[in-house]
Amino acid sequence: MATLKDVAEKSGVTATTVSRVINNKGYISEETRKKVRAVMEEMNYQPNELARSLSKQYTNTIGVIVPHISHPFFAKLINDLEAAAAEKKYKILLCNSNEQPEKETEYLDMFVSNRVAGIILCSKYVKAEKFRSLHIPIINIEREDHMAAMTIQGDNYNGGRMAAKHLIECGCKNLLHFGGVIGKHMPADQRAYGFTEVCKQAGVKCTVLQSDESVYDSMNYHAYIKSGLEKNKEVDGIFASSDLIAAQVIQICTAMGVRIPEQVKLVGFDDVMIAELTTPTITTIHLPIKEMSVMSIECIDKRLRGEMIPSNISLPVKLIKREST
Amino acid sequence: MATLKDVAEKSGVTATTVSRVINNKGYISEETRKKVRAVMEEMNYQPNELARSLSKQYTNTIGVIVPHISHPFFAKLINDLEAAAAEKKYKILLCNSNEQPEKETEYLDMFVSNRVAGIILCSKYVKAEKFRSLHIPIINIEREDHMAAMTIQGDNYNGGRMAAKHLIECGCKNLLHFGGVIGKHMPADQRAYGFTEVCKQAGVKCTVLQSDESVYDSMNYHAYIKSGLEKNKEVDGIFASSDLIAAQVIQICTAMGVRIPEQVKLVGFDDVMIAELTTPTITTIHLPIKEMSVMSIECIDKRLRGEMIPSNISLPVKLIKREST
Repeated sequence: MATLKDVAEKSGVTATTVSRVINNKGYISEETRKKVRAVMEEMNYQPNELARSLSKQYTNTIGVIVPHISHPFFAKLINDLEAAAAEKKYKILLCNSNEQPEKETEYLDMFVSNRVAGIILCSKYVKAEKFRSLHIPIINIEREDHMAAMTIQGDNYNGGRMAAKHLIECGCKNLLHFGGVIGKHMPADQRAYGFTEVCKQAGVKCTVLQSDESVYDSMNYHAYIKSGLEKNKEVDGIFASSDLIAAQVIQICTAMGVRIPEQVKLVGFDDVMIAELTTPTITTIHLPIKEMSVMSIECIDKRLRGEMIPSNISLPVKLIKREST
Repeated sequence: MATLKDVAEKSGVTATTVSRVINNKGYISEETRKKVRAVMEEMNYQPNELARSLSKQYTNTIGVIVPHISHPFFAKLINDLEAAAAEKKYKILLCNSNEQPEKETEYLDMFVSNRVAGIILCSKYVKAEKFRSLHIPIINIEREDHMAAMTIQGDNYNGGRMAAKHLIECGCKNLLHFGGVIGKHMPADQRAYGFTEVCKQAGVKCTVLQSDESVYDSMNYHAYIKSGLEKNKEVDGIFASSDLIAAQVIQICTAMGVRIPEQVKLVGFDDVMIAELTTPTITTIHLPIKEMSVMSIECIDKRLRGEMIPSNISLPVKLIKREST
């Protein structure tokens, strides 16, 4: 591979001049610039980003850890994070933790060894504390950790309220919520609080169920939903804490001969692709994943420039009405 | 951030000794090793992977370019590539091209500047030719480019044959195929060839439709499917060239009052998560995405060690029977 030195030699200029051409810095005559560019092209020269990064002690790379890449929520989030990063000339180093704490710690060490510009955590276990002393900006998305630089989440509490209000307005009298994972405290738990509060105020019956962790990891909620529906036969309105769960509620209801939306109305959460691909399509609470992604990248960028960033950001959600209600 | 020099100073040993401890190379007494490790821990020392990469002229990073991260096929592929890469201590640098040729070229230049260990291309436009001289292993997945090191694909031709055979065995007499993009030559086109061949042999009527590029980019096939079904009212069996299209066939059929599988039988392609989330679930042709991912990473690894790798690999597919037939 051609080096900067090779280009300088062939162009008959100094290495400093070639460096100036590459970085568009200092005065260079148009003639010299053209000659050097032509030689770079001819020799297929590619600047060594590693050497540059080594001198500034960090790269243009942002490390991202998610628990499941193929989960529709994380697939959308990764898509939007990559777009927001590319806009600001950052690259995404992507790691899937499969919810294994030791894997997450290993990835974080790797990020530090590779001098990432920032870290985005969407996974439950990691304690960011250890990394606080390293001055690498850490952004949490939809998880809580007060040692991190910043936490970005949707307004989960109001999302739960909107779901309850909508189901009650549709005439439902007996509501069921398929909620988060037992024993894990996540921002998403707020959905259940907002939901039950509205039900209580309206005097509408409301049952909240939680899944165990193995169900969340497998992404297969069939048995959990089936047992929930069998124990709550009078239910006429369901709020699922993700569109992934809502899609499986449609499957189980159909298998049980229960029609959606005629007999049971259904609201999901996230507003990811799956909500538009099921039959019927899913009414859901839209989480502003794109805006969350843009803000995450912006905050890393600001933090690297030494600017202040908020420690907590909560973004508004909204109800998207589709065929399931 | 603590440097290797800082650790050496505090431990009272030379930098070479610290380096030996880190790399587990050369003779070091157990006592020295313990002391150095304790100081590293105390100072929260993280080895600088950039400096190491600079000396060997490439990183442990594999650049991946996909056209759409949130497309269910690519979400699964990225998931499996990340797992296979992590297994061999590689990291994934992920780029979304949105099918824009200029973005792809820019990403490839960036990969080279960052000295990636290998490149995996799943996007249509890029010509790998330019990068041949750089000796970076390039793997194509489900795309064709004879200048790349290697192309991995599923046996698309036999996939098409299996779909036709299955629909005919289910009693279908009038088949319709929602195929690839007009004017693009992709390995996936082989699905249509295999499909029509079996129909011809069996004397079963068969129509093949192709979408235009804007439909593929939007991932919204509704209008395309609707017009196809309205022009082919006698159809009793459909083969969709992705599960994403198949999910939308269910939606359009339901809206038109056509029941699946009672009136029309449906087979998809890919076997990604969406095929198990629709109602009814989708009978599909399973593409071995996991195995394709493992082989891609293995081949990059082998190529870096100077071993020979095949220029073409085609992996077997199989029919997965679900509720849509």
